[in-house]
Amino acid sequence: MTSPRELTELINSFLAQIPYPAHPAELYSPIRYTLETGGKRLRPILMLSVIDALGGDVSQGLSQAAAIEIFHNFTLVHDDVMDNAQVRRGRPTVFHKWGRDTAILSGDTMLTLAYEYMTSCPDNILRPLLELFNRTAIEVYEGQQLDMEFENRDDVSVDEYIHMIRLKTSVLLACACELGAIVAGASEQTRKAFYSYGTSMGLAFQLRDDYLDTYGDPLIFGKQIGGDIINDKKTWLYITALNEDVSGELKRIIASKPDAQNKIEAVRSFYDSLNLPERICSLIEQYTEQAVKSLNSIEIKPGWKEYFTSLATDLNKRSL
Amino acid sequence: MTSPRELTELINSFLAQIPYPAHPAELYSPIRYTLETGGKRLRPILMLSVIDALGGDVSQGLSQAAAIEIFHNFTLVHDDVMDNAQVRRGRPTVFHKWGRDTAILSGDTMLTLAYEYMTSCPDNILRPLLELFNRTAIEVYEGQQLDMEFENRDDVSVDEYIHMIRLKTSVLLACACELGAIVAGASEQTRKAFYSYGTSMGLAFQLRDDYLDTYGDPLIFGKQIGGDIINDKKTWLYITALNEDVSGELKRIIASKPDAQNKIEAVRSFYDSLNLPERICSLIEQYTEQAVKSLNSIEIKPGWKEYFTSLATDLNKRSL
Repeated sequence: MTSPRELTELINSFLAQIPYPAHPAELYSPIRYTLETGGKRLRPILMLSVIDALGGDVSQGLSQAAAIEIFHNFTLVHDDVMDNAQVRRGRPTVFHKWGRDTAILSGDTMLTLAYEYMTSCPDNILRPLLELFNRTAIEVYEGQQLDMEFENRDDVSVDEYIHMIRLKTSVLLACACELGAIVAGASEQTRKAFYSYGTSMGLAFQLRDDYLDTYGDPLIFGKQIGGDIINDKKTWLYITALNEDVSGELKRIIASKPDAQNKIEAVRSFYDSLNLPERICSLIEQYTEQAVKSLNSIEIKPGWKEYFTSLATDLNKRSL
Repeated sequence: MTSPRELTELINSFLAQIPYPAHPAELYSPIRYTLETGGKRLRPILMLSVIDALGGDVSQGLSQAAAIEIFHNFTLVHDDVMDNAQVRRGRPTVFHKWGRDTAILSGDTMLTLAYEYMTSCPDNILRPLLELFNRTAIEVYEGQQLDMEFENRDDVSVDEYIHMIRLKTSVLLACACELGAIVAGASEQTRKAFYSYGTSMGLAFQLRDDYLDTYGDPLIFGKQIGGDIINDKKTWLYITALNEDVSGELKRIIASKPDAQNKIEAVRSFYDSLNLPERICSLIEQYTEQAVKSLNSIEIKPGWKEYFTSLATDLNKRSL
């Protein structure tokens, strides 16, 4: 059993050794910069863990693990343009450092690089890998589109929100898990079980992100707490509060345009009055349990169910 | 022998029947809008012509022909953001009509759609198709990056310019030709011959574009003549003139900031004094001949060499 730490080292060293062409430097420097920045490497770790759990050879999946990480980072580079974001993982975004045009073009290049690495596999799994990857990529774009549309709508339901984060975040984790199962030569049933595991885990993961942005420990979380509140971001917390706001309290707070710190405190108090922190944590727990249950129907090597259980649980109790 | 007109109808009707999801509308409307706008359909026509010439079944290549056309249009959608372009093919660009974010995201979706259609092929040609397509896509991005960098440089050589348009324009035409050969099950030698044909033809094609922008007939060309001159665009004409401008005449014209019409006339006179219109036409002819010669080494059905000769010749004598 390879530990997440070892898997992280494997994927980091694979990504560090990508042989980028020297020219044009302005195209490839932002890609190297983005991929060296780290992040949790959650998607490749999930993928390689599944390979390991199914008795496959982790080294045979490194190329696909890199592909999924490159794809994820491509979406971040383009999202940062759309959000005019200045900082990501404590460093200037590609958008901020190199400008819009380089961010667009380097992102495009990363998407094609992701396909290149995805394609580096035995012939017999090329088509299933690509079909899953293509479908997932389209869903991720749909999720991003919905996320942008929600910013201009005041009537988003909780169901719509869950649908959006399923597309924007969850399906890529699910895809990573199923890709691992494909590389390991697993049956259709096993593939689907791991896809479900990833889907539920992804929902829990995104809700945990929403929770931490408002209720995280600023010393641990690593970015400003309350960013979502300041930007009126349509998170589960905001949407639920808005839907239950019979007296119009939340709307009044926002309409009064308080300064950042007062807004965070007032909105958080209102969330507290609706018991939202407990309720979102309980929802996260439900999705985490659902993830774990997805694996009940399949046979995997002893120890691995515990591993995936604690992986899901740890990720969804994380503080950063 | 299927005529270019029939091939255009085939590809247009295939593209018109793409079953886009209804939601999110903001993601798919710009894609439909872009693909219905037409354009010359040069790349799919080239590809399908090669299939036909090699005795293959044109209908078996429609999916890949659509893929290459979708890819080409994806690059236009993103290029229009980078150029802040308002008009394309006589209609508002996606960037102008829907804004930056939708243009980025719809473009991304088109790139993945291109991969989906490329992937729709028999297993035995899946890998060669993808390898060629991946490599070409990366080259196209490199070409676009160089094109942007040239805008800020005053020392671009003609060789560098030819290298840039080879990447930005030529390789995709070459790729279209070779994809056709792959679909038709051709030998490596035939594949390479058609790739060379496409490369030389692409260079001629781009140089013809440069020529028409400055010397085209405004009534036929369909867009404003002189746009490249107004924007100091680094074309073959501009770069050659700058390199041969011993007395500093061109620099003086530009530095004097004349109004658009005077600038076009003054720069065009200077080009004339260096014989540039004749020289670029002769270069276009050379590349066209080179394209035709590429096919000498291979055996194709009677009539087809004449067809590809006149295809290359017509395209590079076109007035629009």
